[in-house]
Amino acid sequence: MNNFEFKNPTKIIFGKDTIEKLTTEIPDNAKVLLLYGSGSIKKNGIYEQVKKALKSVVVIEFGGIPANPEYAVLMEALKIIKEQNITFLLAVGGGSVIDGTKFLSSAALYKGDTPWDILTSNTPTTKGMPFGTVLTLPATGSEMNSGAVITRKDTQEKLAMGGPGLFPIFSILDPQVIQSIPERQLVNGITDAFMHVLEQYMTYPAGAYLQDRFAEGILQTLIEIAPKVIDDPSNYIAASNFMWCCTMALNGLIQKGVPTDWAVHAIGHELTALYGIDHARTLAIIAPSHYKYNFEAKKQKLSQYAERIWNINEGSTDDKANAAIEKTEEFFNKLGINTKLSQYTGDYEGTAQKISGRFTERGWLGLGEHKTLTPSDVEKIVAMAY
Amino acid sequence: MNNFEFKNPTKIIFGKDTIEKLTTEIPDNAKVLLLYGSGSIKKNGIYEQVKKALKSVVVIEFGGIPANPEYAVLMEALKIIKEQNITFLLAVGGGSVIDGTKFLSSAALYKGDTPWDILTSNTPTTKGMPFGTVLTLPATGSEMNSGAVITRKDTQEKLAMGGPGLFPIFSILDPQVIQSIPERQLVNGITDAFMHVLEQYMTYPAGAYLQDRFAEGILQTLIEIAPKVIDDPSNYIAASNFMWCCTMALNGLIQKGVPTDWAVHAIGHELTALYGIDHARTLAIIAPSHYKYNFEAKKQKLSQYAERIWNINEGSTDDKANAAIEKTEEFFNKLGINTKLSQYTGDYEGTAQKISGRFTERGWLGLGEHKTLTPSDVEKIVAMAY
Repeated sequence: MNNFEFKNPTKIIFGKDTIEKLTTEIPDNAKVLLLYGSGSIKKNGIYEQVKKALKSVVVIEFGGIPANPEYAVLMEALKIIKEQNITFLLAVGGGSVIDGTKFLSSAALYKGDTPWDILTSNTPTTKGMPFGTVLTLPATGSEMNSGAVITRKDTQEKLAMGGPGLFPIFSILDPQVIQSIPERQLVNGITDAFMHVLEQYMTYPAGAYLQDRFAEGILQTLIEIAPKVIDDPSNYIAASNFMWCCTMALNGLIQKGVPTDWAVHAIGHELTALYGIDHARTLAIIAPSHYKYNFEAKKQKLSQYAERIWNINEGSTDDKANAAIEKTEEFFNKLGINTKLSQYTGDYEGTAQKISGRFTERGWLGLGEHKTLTPSDVEKIVAMAY
Repeated sequence: MNNFEFKNPTKIIFGKDTIEKLTTEIPDNAKVLLLYGSGSIKKNGIYEQVKKALKSVVVIEFGGIPANPEYAVLMEALKIIKEQNITFLLAVGGGSVIDGTKFLSSAALYKGDTPWDILTSNTPTTKGMPFGTVLTLPATGSEMNSGAVITRKDTQEKLAMGGPGLFPIFSILDPQVIQSIPERQLVNGITDAFMHVLEQYMTYPAGAYLQDRFAEGILQTLIEIAPKVIDDPSNYIAASNFMWCCTMALNGLIQKGVPTDWAVHAIGHELTALYGIDHARTLAIIAPSHYKYNFEAKKQKLSQYAERIWNINEGSTDDKANAAIEKTEEFFNKLGINTKLSQYTGDYEGTAQKISGRFTERGWLGLGEHKTLTPSDVEKIVAMAY
C-alpha cells in the first residue's frame, strides 16, 4: 500500500425528501447565487423544492450551464457574482453544474490576470467561495470531491482543476430525483461511475487489499442495480444504491494508497472536445482498447477483476484477463452504450493522429499508472477503438 | 437504504515514516499536552519520533492513561490542561488514549458542574479543544470518529460519549508501529475491528447493497491478513491493510443508511467493568450467543454473510446462518481468543443476573437493531455464553 493523505470534509445529506434540509445548511445572512443547467429542474419539481427551502435568504439565479460546463457561460456568472456581492453558491444539477460552480468558487476569489489561468496553471485552489450542491444526476461524483473539468469551445479544450478549497460544504442527495432522468443519462451515469472505479483499480497489484475490495464492491453493486435502475427508476433501493455508488466511486477513498491510471479519461476528454460525444460514452469507447493495448501491465488486476466481479475462474491469467475485457464491453453494450468510435461518427479517420498531435502540442509527458504512455501509444489505442 | 447524514472531517496521514509530519500539522503557537498510556512508546521509538517532530512547539506531557481510560486519571490531566493553559491535545496511543483525549477535549471547554455529566447526560459535544492523534495500536477506529468510551472504577461504570466536535483534526497512521505490539493486543485489534463491522452489518436486509459490500470487504480483508499479521508484524502489506481496516470499520461510513445493533458492545462493556476482560474478548464471548438467541431476526444477513464471507453456499438459509456463527467462533478461536466466559473466570455464576440487573437499574429501554431486547433477554444471552 502506498503512503497517502485523505481528508474529505463534505457533509452528505442523503435520502428521501432531503432537499428541504437546505434551509438549515445555508447561512442566514448569505446572498446566494443559485446555479443550474438547461432548466429541467423547472419541469421535475426540484426547482420548487429548492426555492421553498431558500425562502428566508436572498437568492439570485443563473441558469443555462451546459453539459461540459463552458468557460464563456461561466464568465457571465462570474460577472453576476462580483456585481451582486454573492457570498454563497448553490449548484442544483449534475456534474456539469457542480463542476462549473467549483470553477466559479475558485474564480470568485482569484487574484490573477484571467481566470483561465486557474485551468492552465495547475495550481490547486486552497480557498474558494463556499458552496453547496443539490445533486440531480448521479454520475460524476463531483458532489463529494474537490475536482472539476471545464470546457472551452473556442479552443476545443477540456481541462481539469481542483484543490482542497473546492469541496462542497454540503451535498444533498435525494435518490428520488432520478425518476425524471432520461434513460440515456441514467446509463451514462452508471458507465461513468463504473469507469471511475476502473481508472483507480485497473493498474497493478499494490498490496492495497481493502481498497481493492471497496472498488470491487462498487462495481458489483453497479452491475446489480443497473438493469433495475433502467427498468424502473422509481425503484428506491436501486436508485439509492446507484446514487451512493456514483459518489463513493470518486470521493477520493478508493484511490488512496493505490496507483491510478486516468488515461481513459485523458483520451476520452479529447473525443468529447472533438465530436461532442457524451463523456461516459467516450470512456466506454477507449477503455477496452486501452486495456488490450496495455495488457501485460494490467493483466494481474484484470484477472482479479475477472474472478471477483465476473466469476470467471477457469483458464490462465491471460484467459481470465481477456474474458474480463470482453465482459466489460458486453456490460456497456447491454446498457445500450456503443464501444466503437465509428458507431458515433462517420468522420473518425485521422482521429488517432489528431489526438496524439494535441497531446504532443500540450507537452504531456506520459499517461497511465506508470506515466509512460506516449502520444504514439495514445494514437494506437485510439485507432484500436475505431 | 435509510436516510443518513455523513460528515467526517478528520485528515488521515497514512504510511511509512509519517510521524515526522506532525511538525506541519500542529499550529506553531500551540501549547501542546502530549497524552500517552503505560509508557510503551518510550521503548519502541515512537516517543522519540514524536518529540523530534514537536521540537518547535511547547509540549507538556501526561502519561499513564490506562486501558479502559479511567475517569479519575483523566481528571488529573484536566487539571494540567487548565493550569497550564493548554491549547492543543495530542494523543499518542491506541483507542484508550485517544478516547481519553476526546473526553478531555470536551471537558476542557465544558461549562457544567462536573465533567462526569458529559458521560451521563447524553448531550453531544459540538465543540471541543482541538486534538490530533498518532495511532500506536490499530483496533478501535477512534482515530477517525467522534466517539469515546470512558470507565469509572469506583462505580464500575463504562459509558459512551461523543459528538461532531470530537473528530480528531488529524490522525497519523504509520503501520510500522505494529511491529512492537504484543500478539495478545494484535489479535484483540483484529477481533475488535471484525466485531465493529458485524455490529453494523448483522441485522436485517435494508437494501443498502453498497454498505453491505463495504462491510464484507473489511471482513474479507481482516480474514486474509489476520494470520499474516500474527506470523510477522513486519509484513508491511499485512500491517497496512490491518490498520486501514480498523479505521474504516468504525469511521461512520459503513453504518450510514443501515440499521445497527451494538448490543454485543453494550453487554461486553459490562464484562470488562465486572471482570476486567479485554474489550475485544468480551465481544467474542457475547457475539455467538447473541446471534443464536436472535437467530430468526438475523438469519437473512447471517446467511448472506455465510455465502459471501465464508463461501458457504449449500443448505437452507437456516443451515447457512448456523454455519456462519460457527465459522465466526472458529475464526476467533484460531486467533487464540476464547469465546466462553468460563474460560476467563471461575466466578461466572450469577453474571447474567448481575448484568441484567445493572441494565434494569440504568433504565435501558431496549437493545439491538429493533431496540426490543429487554434485560431478561440480556440475561439469557449472557447465560448462553458461560
